[in-house]
Amino acid sequence: MASRYEKALEIIRAAGAEALLAASPSAVTWLTGFAGDIQTGPNPFAMSPFALVTKDGPPMLIASEDDAQAAPPGCATIIFKGFTNEPLRLVGNALRAIKQAVGSRKVAIEAATFPVALATELTWVDISAELALAKAVKDPDEIIKLREALALCDVGQQEARRCMEAGRTELDVWATVKAAIERKAGERAPVLVDLLSGPRTDLVGKPPSSRVLQQGDLVLIDLAPRRSGYWGDSCTTVALGKPSASVKTRYRMVRDVLERATDAIRPGIVAGELDTLVRQQLNYPHHTGHGLGTSYHEEPRIVPNSPAVLAPNMVIALEPGMYGDGMGTRLERVMLVTDDGCEVLSQYDLDL
Amino acid sequence: MASRYEKALEIIRAAGAEALLAASPSAVTWLTGFAGDIQTGPNPFAMSPFALVTKDGPPMLIASEDDAQAAPPGCATIIFKGFTNEPLRLVGNALRAIKQAVGSRKVAIEAATFPVALATELTWVDISAELALAKAVKDPDEIIKLREALALCDVGQQEARRCMEAGRTELDVWATVKAAIERKAGERAPVLVDLLSGPRTDLVGKPPSSRVLQQGDLVLIDLAPRRSGYWGDSCTTVALGKPSASVKTRYRMVRDVLERATDAIRPGIVAGELDTLVRQQLNYPHHTGHGLGTSYHEEPRIVPNSPAVLAPNMVIALEPGMYGDGMGTRLERVMLVTDDGCEVLSQYDLDL
Repeated sequence: MASRYEKALEIIRAAGAEALLAASPSAVTWLTGFAGDIQTGPNPFAMSPFALVTKDGPPMLIASEDDAQAAPPGCATIIFKGFTNEPLRLVGNALRAIKQAVGSRKVAIEAATFPVALATELTWVDISAELALAKAVKDPDEIIKLREALALCDVGQQEARRCMEAGRTELDVWATVKAAIERKAGERAPVLVDLLSGPRTDLVGKPPSSRVLQQGDLVLIDLAPRRSGYWGDSCTTVALGKPSASVKTRYRMVRDVLERATDAIRPGIVAGELDTLVRQQLNYPHHTGHGLGTSYHEEPRIVPNSPAVLAPNMVIALEPGMYGDGMGTRLERVMLVTDDGCEVLSQYDLDL
Repeated sequence: MASRYEKALEIIRAAGAEALLAASPSAVTWLTGFAGDIQTGPNPFAMSPFALVTKDGPPMLIASEDDAQAAPPGCATIIFKGFTNEPLRLVGNALRAIKQAVGSRKVAIEAATFPVALATELTWVDISAELALAKAVKDPDEIIKLREALALCDVGQQEARRCMEAGRTELDVWATVKAAIERKAGERAPVLVDLLSGPRTDLVGKPPSSRVLQQGDLVLIDLAPRRSGYWGDSCTTVALGKPSASVKTRYRMVRDVLERATDAIRPGIVAGELDTLVRQQLNYPHHTGHGLGTSYHEEPRIVPNSPAVLAPNMVIALEPGMYGDGMGTRLERVMLVTDDGCEVLSQYDLDL
């Protein structure tokens, strides 16, 4: 099986280029292992790191002095000026380093994210689509990192179940859950979160609000934390107090569909067919699932008509749901596709 | 005084363009008031929103369906496809909306962040430098939002002082502080944080770690939360237990320098001269201060040789510090430049 480096070289060759220069955080992580801080938006002092792949050796990081401090061990790094008391030269500093590394080679880039100020100084070709597909099958070290990210989901979901009670707000529950995740990680961790209670569960996906939890509420919690640049994903729906018969019926439907969909995962199944299989039994306005890696939503996307074919070492989340009448219910689980089926990686409690 | 809209029109005119098309989160907020979620990196389903300025009317937002839900009241919005079960067409969806709005007009852009996939379809000119300068003097509604962001700093700093104690980790303190900030905001809030204790205070700026606070530690906390798209900033250094004589001496030096620098702020003073004034008395490896707005570090940068001249309605942070011997100390305060001096906006306790 081709490693990430080999896949990148194949993308370069097929595009008629001589190098790949990635600028999106997810591609930089995929190629070099570098995972930078993303929680407060663009760095005002320097351009974000780049990953450079050529046939001359393993992927290199091109990064500001500040970012380079977080370069993975053993990763060759070209450094440019970062945090400074001098006038800011975001483009100039990065461009000089890039030009020196790339020379006159034609570079493969992701045009949807690559800054025009740099692109105008390079000869480039867009390989976004090829890169998106190449990321779907994971290398062994990526699967280790995904397991670690999913362990953060387990901790977060367990804490949510433990701490939710009538009288606390959604934001209170979120604060406790986030603290548990960061304590486990030993550092700040970016987390995408939907946290909805009572009638808000019908909104499908929204961040936590000041709404106060009530006895009898359903609470829907979708947690996607990032660890070492790889994203976990998870969703449970929990009843506060004794659930009504109709809540139990809905829960059972969603849970049964998730179990059957899990059983259907194996190499060779087409993502669009898996989507149809699940969607025939439930009606929901979102995807059935998606790949997980250095993005929290990537190929193979489990959506209608997707031609992607499941293969060993893909890591995919399935998340069927049912919404309406203030009883929005979604359950999610992440699987590693194996040679003859799948291994369920999520270990948190899925019960109502 | 020119409003943001008038300043943008002047930038367009001076650049020989017919429109301004902003893609960076800070410029989009500055022009339209839109403040999107930035805490988990790029949206995998759609390009981030754009702001379009022409002489035909107030700034418009060009955004995906999902982002458009958070459009400010009254902001004209052009919508493109967002979250979808169909194949992802990030560039195509945004480009169609942009082309329809811009037509064949020459657009002023920030080339350091503008995606090349869109730029190749437009006639453009780079106005990054002009935009950075134009943002320095704030409109009245921006000052209101900055006060609200600084109120989050007050809450966070107060909570940090309240909850820090020997035996808790830096991450524990951070979790409690973040929870207080988000409770006050009533929603998730991006926060840039340095939280360093004991010998780590000499590292100047790093996120919280698993280090356990010890009696006798200094704890340095720099909090920059975002509220409605505008960033607050703040820094205190607090002693756990009775501070030593040398800690007190250092604290007094930094505090005195901050007080004198505050007294020096008035319209007409050159940022580089203000920097020299402060730096003559203390030695630190970072800027003396910076503007605050839709970026947490913007013009006027208070750094050596800066030619920027302070003017009424600029909002600036001053943050002198002193590092070494495990007693890193930094104190920060945010000021509004007034007609004849400044108003201190920060209201948290600066004591040791």
